Amino acid sequence: MFAASIITLFPEAFPGTLGLSLIGKALRDGLWSLDTVNLRDFGHGPHRSVDDTPAGGGAGMVIRADVAAAAIDSIKDQGPLIYLSPRGQQFSQAMAHQWASSSGIVLFCGRFEGLDERVIEARSMQEVAVGDAVLAGGESAALVVLEACVRLIPGVLGNEASIVEESFSEGLLEHPQYTRPRDWEGRCIPEILLSGDHAKIEAWRRGERERISAAANARREKP
Amino acid sequence: MFAASIITLFPEAFPGTLGLSLIGKALRDGLWSLDTVNLRDFGHGPHRSVDDTPAGGGAGMVIRADVAAAAIDSIKDQGPLIYLSPRGQQFSQAMAHQWASSSGIVLFCGRFEGLDERVIEARSMQEVAVGDAVLAGGESAALVVLEACVRLIPGVLGNEASIVEESFSEGLLEHPQYTRPRDWEGRCIPEILLSGDHAKIEAWRRGERERISAAANARREKP
Repeated sequence: MFAASIITLFPEAFPGTLGLSLIGKALRDGLWSLDTVNLRDFGHGPHRSVDDTPAGGGAGMVIRADVAAAAIDSIKDQGPLIYLSPRGQQFSQAMAHQWASSSGIVLFCGRFEGLDERVIEARSMQEVAVGDAVLAGGESAALVVLEACVRLIPGVLGNEASIVEESFSEGLLEHPQYTRPRDWEGRCIPEILLSGDHAKIEAWRRGERERISAAANARREKP
Repeated sequence: MFAASIITLFPEAFPGTLGLSLIGKALRDGLWSLDTVNLRDFGHGPHRSVDDTPAGGGAGMVIRADVAAAAIDSIKDQGPLIYLSPRGQQFSQAMAHQWASSSGIVLFCGRFEGLDERVIEARSMQEVAVGDAVLAGGESAALVVLEACVRLIPGVLGNEASIVEESFSEGLLEHPQYTRPRDWEGRCIPEILLSGDHAKIEAWRRGERERISAAANARREKP
């Protein structure tokens, strides 16, 4: 079973969106598990302090290596250990597939100016970014990562997922979708989709997937 | 003031992580506002149905254009209208800056197989992806987008943000951070950071930012 562990200063943020709909139902049905580890529990002194000022000066606070390592080492049977950080590799569908088929992952949610570099190295943390912007912490990004993983676990979404998945895994984005009403604000559903000719419909959809994917790639390659 | 509106089938998912820490304090202090619009309120029939089967066949359900448009049109004084979708342009720090300095944004959270294409066109929705993976819905992605925007609003994070921001906006990723203890598991803080020579420290940090950014770019350019 896929077991997710999240190291965070805000355990109350979970399950959050992971409690919704079929992902949440699967959690309640035991198709996957979610544990939070409160980083604060491993802090020092009367205030359970987890951070200190940056070596060399500068604004903000840095999470201590010893505190982070104690939290990490408290988790048994770890899978990949992921540190959510804008410096990381962009989160991808390939990562979601790989992790969803593993026995679980540990997600470390940073806060403040980040984590002492030595613990990233010493514990072989994999740095992963979700989107290309700076966040206040890793919690929202952790929700995105786990949602993408959990929906791939067999039985979570049923058959519905397989279609979307298939087109995405070919490296193509989804074709446009339409539903009733046939005419809305003077805009009509493309005739071909109403033709009943399944071969033509599939060819049209494939063409659209290719067109949309090419446009998206061109946009991404711009500096 | 920055006003965020979220169209969703799961209004209970908000504020979620946006209620945490300084982002949440700023919400309670009125530095920004968050409203949810329940798509279900605009559904049809006794079950307030919002979706229907895809034209041309296929798995899953598609959100109706008329239902989506009614929800969108119920929001006054709209700023940019963003549809969270794996087909979209990757969410970036530049978008966060642009939107954070506007009077607000509207985020449409998709579910099922997506949204009728006609409403995307007719309401000029901007498609934005957060990460490069398929999600179960747009809610987790909406949290990421708003967190990145709100932390840029003056007064939300205080001065702390400006440093991180500065290095990111130059197009460089952050340099490594270290804090006490000096020696941890036999790994020491780089001597230069303890030298007290601020010019040398800044030069070292800049070099690290350049090195890390170059490595990240090289990784991203791989197919």
